[in-house]
Amino acid sequence: MRRSLSASEAVVRHRIASTTALDRWLAARLQQSIAASGVGVELWDGTTIHPGGERIGDLLIRDRGALAALLINPDLQYGELYSAGRIDVRGDFAAVVDAVSRVSIDAPLSWRERLALWAARPNALVRARRNIHHHYDLGNDFYQLWLDPQLVYTCGYYPTASAGLEEAQLAKLDLVCRKLRLTAGDTVVEAGCGWGALALHMARAYGARVKAFNISTEQIAFARDRARREGLDDRVTFIEDDYRNVSGRFDVFVSVGMLEHVGRRNFSSLARVLRRVIDRPTGRGLLHFIGRDTARPLNAWTRHRIFPGAYAPTLGEVMAHVIEPARLSVLDVENLRLHYARTLQHWREQFTPAEADVRARFGEAFCRAWRLYLAASEAAFKVGSLQLFQVLFAPSSSGTVRWTRAEIYSELAGLL
Amino acid sequence: MRRSLSASEAVVRHRIASTTALDRWLAARLQQSIAASGVGVELWDGTTIHPGGERIGDLLIRDRGALAALLINPDLQYGELYSAGRIDVRGDFAAVVDAVSRVSIDAPLSWRERLALWAARPNALVRARRNIHHHYDLGNDFYQLWLDPQLVYTCGYYPTASAGLEEAQLAKLDLVCRKLRLTAGDTVVEAGCGWGALALHMARAYGARVKAFNISTEQIAFARDRARREGLDDRVTFIEDDYRNVSGRFDVFVSVGMLEHVGRRNFSSLARVLRRVIDRPTGRGLLHFIGRDTARPLNAWTRHRIFPGAYAPTLGEVMAHVIEPARLSVLDVENLRLHYARTLQHWREQFTPAEADVRARFGEAFCRAWRLYLAASEAAFKVGSLQLFQVLFAPSSSGTVRWTRAEIYSELAGLL
Repeated sequence: MRRSLSASEAVVRHRIASTTALDRWLAARLQQSIAASGVGVELWDGTTIHPGGERIGDLLIRDRGALAALLINPDLQYGELYSAGRIDVRGDFAAVVDAVSRVSIDAPLSWRERLALWAARPNALVRARRNIHHHYDLGNDFYQLWLDPQLVYTCGYYPTASAGLEEAQLAKLDLVCRKLRLTAGDTVVEAGCGWGALALHMARAYGARVKAFNISTEQIAFARDRARREGLDDRVTFIEDDYRNVSGRFDVFVSVGMLEHVGRRNFSSLARVLRRVIDRPTGRGLLHFIGRDTARPLNAWTRHRIFPGAYAPTLGEVMAHVIEPARLSVLDVENLRLHYARTLQHWREQFTPAEADVRARFGEAFCRAWRLYLAASEAAFKVGSLQLFQVLFAPSSSGTVRWTRAEIYSELAGLL
Repeated sequence: MRRSLSASEAVVRHRIASTTALDRWLAARLQQSIAASGVGVELWDGTTIHPGGERIGDLLIRDRGALAALLINPDLQYGELYSAGRIDVRGDFAAVVDAVSRVSIDAPLSWRERLALWAARPNALVRARRNIHHHYDLGNDFYQLWLDPQLVYTCGYYPTASAGLEEAQLAKLDLVCRKLRLTAGDTVVEAGCGWGALALHMARAYGARVKAFNISTEQIAFARDRARREGLDDRVTFIEDDYRNVSGRFDVFVSVGMLEHVGRRNFSSLARVLRRVIDRPTGRGLLHFIGRDTARPLNAWTRHRIFPGAYAPTLGEVMAHVIEPARLSVLDVENLRLHYARTLQHWREQFTPAEADVRARFGEAFCRAWRLYLAASEAAFKVGSLQLFQVLFAPSSSGTVRWTRAEIYSELAGLL
């Protein structure tokens, strides 16, 4: 984080200064930009600007610099300043984040966002490795604090709205296998395998033979250990390499939660890989990814601090730059955005009681950044500024098309 | 049709001529272009060029002009010459058409196709009316000869592979309603309503209030009569007008089998209509259309003789030019191409015994053209050169998203 002041120091230093007429005018502008949210603004000397109507909570601005920064570049600064403790939230944290997200969903593209869309650099192999290391090599025990026991760090699938996180993650792994009509002996390549849950499930429950790629050193070590302990290492090979280096042909290509990290400029190399690896009569594949309804870069703070190099594409972009150039036929698309909102809610509910641990190990700013990231992502899926797409596809001539989707659900119902 | 010679006259005139070395060389070239199909070529004097391997059937070329035309512009001339009886088929007709379709699926875009993509003209209101009249105003009793009793002239949905046509069409109407979560009192606008089966089903089985648009005079008259006879004319209004003239807001927009006739250049006006008519919290919609995996004009003969102005778009084109500009969120995409192949097979099985009637009323060339059109369309869906997409969507903020798709199938199972 850029500033070294702790939250409490910042609070002490700025509480003593009183506000000027300019400060109050700027605060009124800030409140205006989120007026419909029902969230108020309170300045460092206690000056408050009320919204009209129901009051969801307040945004506490701790110093003059923070106020100015929020007005100049809100997309980046909400995250930066909240992490640094220079802004804070009064009221239910998730509810305030949700309310502020709701009022900004229809904002037109800013010049900063246009620039970001235009300037997105290809994630070369070296850069991709650095970007992934930034997020996924924080330590497996960090993620164990708040993910499900299988460590599935992607959207779950809740068969019923009351299902728990563990059940939802298992049901998701199974939904993916069912959509793919996975059967014993199928060869699978998985691009971006996380801690290995899907690869192991495919081998364990379906008898598939899986080569799973990942460039996160910590995740691969963990996954290999699991495979060995479960005696699945004859059927699942975890490979610490970029998926673009995969060779050979497979029955199935699957990638859950990786396309977001591929970046728009690399879609054509993904298309070439897809075209090559499942080019056989039994070939089929599935991409599960965070998407958008309209082309827009991720929030600047998320892009800088949480997921460098990431981009959530529209379905149209994936069709035009991945599926069509690979000469694949789309069989099925499902949007699971409400399931991701629920998944994030469950993660947040497990993260909150673990905050003391996180703070002790990574510091206050890190803990605040993750608190915000989880709540803001949940809000984004709830309000629809982010989508979650599962796209099933096959070469046009594939003989692996299901007659109807009803089978998927009768099979799932039998399992759960 | 361009030539006035009947098939039998052509046969008599050309059988007497013998073939030259050039004819036989050209025939060998023609056979080469379909070599992998297992279909042979036989010339007007009985000269035959065998394919290697299994023999599916033969293409009988009745005169020298036909041979040359097939080599110069096969995309158009297979249809033209078959309709005119200047080429014929020996062996199982559908099997030969299927085999020839299979070998041409991967052909690169010809310069004629590139030109057609580039030159596609917008279907202005007047042109749209003329194009639709060409196909849909052939007389309701013509379609009654070979469609299901409800006259549904779009892809059916076969709950099981052994279902019949009537069951499949009813299941399709219901699948569309289930995907849309249709409930009593919902207001619906239907664009391109055919003979009214879906509009009437929505009112009858779900209690919806439907405004259904169509620019085919004969179809509208038929649909109005049905609504009156069933006592549904208080809930279903059939409007003889272009869907682009629809006004007001609705809960549901639905269009089954119309997008193919809209034409690429008019996608933006469809997007404007969509954005306007379902812009409410309960808004949602469904487009059911013939599509492609890669951008390519329809077969030239189909475009000239069967469906003037038609274009089967890729999913990417529909996303980029319809769904995204309308600021809609895709909830679900299903590809039903095998169901359209089955539907066309069932239509063909009803058309074949009705051929004597069709010939008596419309002449030999018309009858042959329809025989070819039905068989070639069936083959195109089987081999995957055409796809059938159902796209379900809603404004991003819509509150009408299903929790899971499993409900659709348990509800359908309860009905059937």
